[in-house]
Amino acid sequence: MIRVAILGATGYTARELLELLLRHPEVEVTALGTRQEDGPHLAEVHPALRSRLDLRLENLTPAEVAQRADCVFGCLPHGASAEVISDLLDNECRVIDFSADYRLNDPQVYQAWYQVEHPDPERMGKTVYGLPELYREQIRGAQLVANPGCYPTAAILGLAPLLKARVIDPQGIVIDAKSGITGAGRSPKPNLHFPECNENLTPYNIGKHRHTPEIDQILSTWANVETNVIFTPHLIPMDRGELITAYADVKAGTTGEQLLETLQGFYQDEPFVRVVDHLPGTKDVAHTNFCDVTARVVGSKAVIVSVIDNLIKGASGAAVQNFNVIYDFPETMGLL
Amino acid sequence: MIRVAILGATGYTARELLELLLRHPEVEVTALGTRQEDGPHLAEVHPALRSRLDLRLENLTPAEVAQRADCVFGCLPHGASAEVISDLLDNECRVIDFSADYRLNDPQVYQAWYQVEHPDPERMGKTVYGLPELYREQIRGAQLVANPGCYPTAAILGLAPLLKARVIDPQGIVIDAKSGITGAGRSPKPNLHFPECNENLTPYNIGKHRHTPEIDQILSTWANVETNVIFTPHLIPMDRGELITAYADVKAGTTGEQLLETLQGFYQDEPFVRVVDHLPGTKDVAHTNFCDVTARVVGSKAVIVSVIDNLIKGASGAAVQNFNVIYDFPETMGLL
Amino acid sequence: MIRVAILGATGYTARELLELLLRHPEVEVTALGTRQEDGPHLAEVHPALRSRLDLRLENLTPAEVAQRADCVFGCLPHGASAEVISDLLDNECRVIDFSADYRLNDPQVYQAWYQVEHPDPERMGKTVYGLPELYREQIRGAQLVANPGCYPTAAILGLAPLLKARVIDPQGIVIDAKSGITGAGRSPKPNLHFPECNENLTPYNIGKHRHTPEIDQILSTWANVETNVIFTPHLIPMDRGELITAYADVKAGTTGEQLLETLQGFYQDEPFVRVVDHLPGTKDVAHTNFCDVTARVVGSKAVIVSVIDNLIKGASGAAVQNFNVIYDFPETMGLL
Amino acid sequence: MIRVAILGATGYTARELLELLLRHPEVEVTALGTRQEDGPHLAEVHPALRSRLDLRLENLTPAEVAQRADCVFGCLPHGASAEVISDLLDNECRVIDFSADYRLNDPQVYQAWYQVEHPDPERMGKTVYGLPELYREQIRGAQLVANPGCYPTAAILGLAPLLKARVIDPQGIVIDAKSGITGAGRSPKPNLHFPECNENLTPYNIGKHRHTPEIDQILSTWANVETNVIFTPHLIPMDRGELITAYADVKAGTTGEQLLETLQGFYQDEPFVRVVDHLPGTKDVAHTNFCDVTARVVGSKAVIVSVIDNLIKGASGAAVQNFNVIYDFPETMGLL
Repeated sequence: MIRVAILGATGYTARELLELLLRHPEVEVTALGTRQEDGPHLAEVHPALRSRLDLRLENLTPAEVAQRADCVFGCLPHGASAEVISDLLDNECRVIDFSADYRLNDPQVYQAWYQVEHPDPERMGKTVYGLPELYREQIRGAQLVANPGCYPTAAILGLAPLLKARVIDPQGIVIDAKSGITGAGRSPKPNLHFPECNENLTPYNIGKHRHTPEIDQILSTWANVETNVIFTPHLIPMDRGELITAYADVKAGTTGEQLLETLQGFYQDEPFVRVVDHLPGTKDVAHTNFCDVTARVVGSKAVIVSVIDNLIKGASGAAVQNFNVIYDFPETMGLL
Repeated sequence: MIRVAILGATGYTARELLELLLRHPEVEVTALGTRQEDGPHLAEVHPALRSRLDLRLENLTPAEVAQRADCVFGCLPHGASAEVISDLLDNECRVIDFSADYRLNDPQVYQAWYQVEHPDPERMGKTVYGLPELYREQIRGAQLVANPGCYPTAAILGLAPLLKARVIDPQGIVIDAKSGITGAGRSPKPNLHFPECNENLTPYNIGKHRHTPEIDQILSTWANVETNVIFTPHLIPMDRGELITAYADVKAGTTGEQLLETLQGFYQDEPFVRVVDHLPGTKDVAHTNFCDVTARVVGSKAVIVSVIDNLIKGASGAAVQNFNVIYDFPETMGLL
Repeated sequence: MIRVAILGATGYTARELLELLLRHPEVEVTALGTRQEDGPHLAEVHPALRSRLDLRLENLTPAEVAQRADCVFGCLPHGASAEVISDLLDNECRVIDFSADYRLNDPQVYQAWYQVEHPDPERMGKTVYGLPELYREQIRGAQLVANPGCYPTAAILGLAPLLKARVIDPQGIVIDAKSGITGAGRSPKPNLHFPECNENLTPYNIGKHRHTPEIDQILSTWANVETNVIFTPHLIPMDRGELITAYADVKAGTTGEQLLETLQGFYQDEPFVRVVDHLPGTKDVAHTNFCDVTARVVGSKAVIVSVIDNLIKGASGAAVQNFNVIYDFPETMGLL
Repeated sequence: MIRVAILGATGYTARELLELLLRHPEVEVTALGTRQEDGPHLAEVHPALRSRLDLRLENLTPAEVAQRADCVFGCLPHGASAEVISDLLDNECRVIDFSADYRLNDPQVYQAWYQVEHPDPERMGKTVYGLPELYREQIRGAQLVANPGCYPTAAILGLAPLLKARVIDPQGIVIDAKSGITGAGRSPKPNLHFPECNENLTPYNIGKHRHTPEIDQILSTWANVETNVIFTPHLIPMDRGELITAYADVKAGTTGEQLLETLQGFYQDEPFVRVVDHLPGTKDVAHTNFCDVTARVVGSKAVIVSVIDNLIKGASGAAVQNFNVIYDFPETMGLL
């Protein structure tokens, strides 16, 4: 039984994580962290979890967390996350970090995109990126795992095997991404007010979204090519679900069937990636840890479609999958 | 051409009002008020209205407003509204007030439900309630009209003729009300954050909603009976639309057909109330100034269903209808 | 390990049931029935379940089903269901029937509301109503259980303990019910076409809904009073979730706190009913087998609010709960 | 006063058109056509229009239509449309055709994409494409106008001026399109059933959508370049609104500001195209005839965003705009 703590327990990813962990036979949730002082009960913060777990949220020091938990899921904002995590690691906790703090290798790139100096630059580039489909071996037994961003998960799972197989051109890749509103977090904001985003569809942060360097870094290093993706996210009026439609110049003569075969070959033993020949929708994977992916050739382009649930495979499900890999539990435990 | 100002121009009712007024052939919009200091352009505040009206919002004194406008539509919060309005009236403006400040007759009742002392108690009880279907004659030429609340509009239009005809019992009336989220205003709040109210249905303020005394006062005084309605509002995951399902003990022997005939008789010459024999939905009246109403008898109860668009017949459309009555324009002008 | 078949496996309740059963440690799903001839694979019918279970749907005779399964979950329409079920019972299967066929005691009442003659009238009145909170002892070991309707579940759980305690008047109870669209099934119909019910709110079948006699029968027999509920359902633009707001004359002097205490006393050991003092929303119980219930007194009325997920506690979760009771597994197995 | 008929009056575009025409001061609606035999009243077919127009739908011959109307708005399906229209033209009606029948120039291309032989090939290539922003002069006084498709409207308005100015590369243009569900029509289908498309996001017809040759033909002929767009539509869970995100290689050295200036220069006198520097959402243009468009440069690509209401600027509003141009009424009449 692994004793588990969740830091930043008020958000949507924490709620989703709790729902998964409460079904996990090898987990005991022992602490819930918050930076709020009043220490509300979990049932007040997440009414859906009433009667499931009798814990209050607490403002805990890293040392207190380390005393109570073997493994910490960090759902803190970037910057704040790395500060706490380096203390937790010193206290011999394992950590699965939902923030972006340990995903990028280069402190300069981090500072350029996140507008803060990284508080723990020496761990950058030495931390495994928690996408088991690409980095399973490095995740086994790791003390710290950087849980991937939601958009990067969907984009990388769709593109990486095709880049590796050299059937698409790494230059000029367009990733047109669409996400449900939970992807933007639980804090009320004018543009996330119900009547503003309901019955509305808006692009945002075109060319400026922080997931851009993360996608480029992983695609480039893993497939050993240089990419410079054009990344364009859109907000969709639904709770959850993320779909990326990616466009890349296809190697001359390559057919859609060949793209599918490449994907099928790569993912054939993966429990959570389903290569399909129909066009998948986000609802096919809602409330699951699956990523459904397909590809077509249209004219000179490969069109790749990839769907995930941003809260599960794009966050909390991936974290549990990483947890299972770290501790050598069956990888689907608590996830099916 | 009537020169018109709108105070509190940042909200949803103001935006809706502008859309109606910009189509009204006898209106020139000359001023937009806000309590914000920075004076944004209308196109920034309401992007949908870009290129429709080249005005900035301004923080104007009542005297400045009165200089620019013959008639003022007040979209200010209660309390704040009455303070400004008494000045406007002294400056000989006509005013159509969207707030609750002049709807109730009794300062004590106002204070009990709105938790503030009324700043202008002497005008209470002397101001006409702007529901032309009940008070058309008193609205003609009025200097000040209290525009009704959205729930009261739907509830009163459904119940008043049946109470007047003495075919339902005034005691024990239940009004189960359902509203789209724009009814809760434009300010972001945790419970109005998209992922909180999307795919959700919640009752709120059961037995405590401020529209309760307004409904009771109008029903009681107009139909000359005493009512004490049980009023239970619910938030529905949609932008606009309001439906009330009201339940009252029906006079023994009265049939559903007779209820419908009573309603039809009362509303036969009304341009904006449609008595229907099917069960109406909110979408039948969305983006219109119509109220569709029907009634049934089930067991010992009359069941009355009434639907409006909360932003139009429940607010801005009603205000334009009142404007037309005040100035003796055709009542449907700008509204069909 | 209990071998389980699902008949009528194409609908939403069957999909939801499969998701639950695939997580249940004591269940092996061995057959999926359909009346379609082409025998599609489960992954085609429910793309979300791709890779979860490698079975085709088959048009099976009751004898074939009985050979493969110990326990059958029947998701067939009323009428058709009873015909198949009597054969299954003769073949010594246990059956949990989602249809209305064995819920009512009286063949006359059945025929009046369902417009068909009951094919198996002798089992009517001898079959247990599968609401463990009221009938747990009778469900244990039962060969046939009538799984309750969704609205009746929410309504009865809110009202029954208060009727039994004689704190509300059984006469004149109003049940204003609201449901997400999955409650209307998976067959496309004009009024369920997305642009017709999205952003819309409509009452339907006022005074005519088939769940009315079911509610009255259970409340009357269990609480030993006579009720004649006024039942008014509404369609809400969301996938899942059901909320009932019930109104009953409250016994003079009874407070809201006393209503809550009555409910808390009755449900204190129930794993799936949570008595809460806040006003619950449907999202608090979405994707769970919980029913959250609360009560207030407003004027002369008790106002009871009860929420469930119509597909889980209102159908498939309740069926699994009944399954657990029948076989004496822990009642929450596969459900938390 | 122009006497106007609408053929195919049961659909969403017809309803929307009626709402516009009933506000148009120079229009009298004199006939509503349907191929149904029972001749329902308009209020039954479109409950929202109850009391607005007292007409029944009728199954009329082209000769009967021509007797009653000067101008016909054809909302019939492709194929059926051209058959009726050639008769109407012979009877000296003017026709604005919502179908695709007269949009394409080449009968072969038509047959390849629409799988039927064109019934009136000689008018193909001689009929003006009803996009006033490109073809205003040819529309004036025209007897027949081919009203554009919804996706082509949004795509062409965003791309055409940039192609003409030679600042983007005509080869390899990607158009990632997103549409609300009304774009798929009013007939119930499994994939348009509320619980299937609500909370879901799906691509469809990738590389196969019939609007593809229409976009290529207009862009190519008008801008005198050859395009072969990659067109990828997606269904968004909302009623109305269409957004296209288009990607094209940008001419080296061209900035986002220059793209915006090109668009602003081209559209400066257009009443219904608003070039904006923020990222527009579909709600900015919902229920209006506006198209809001912007552009950015990201890496080597121009990213163009264009939003319309698919039922207004993408169908019925465009038709009224064409009507105004044909008859030389002010172009915004009935549309603002």
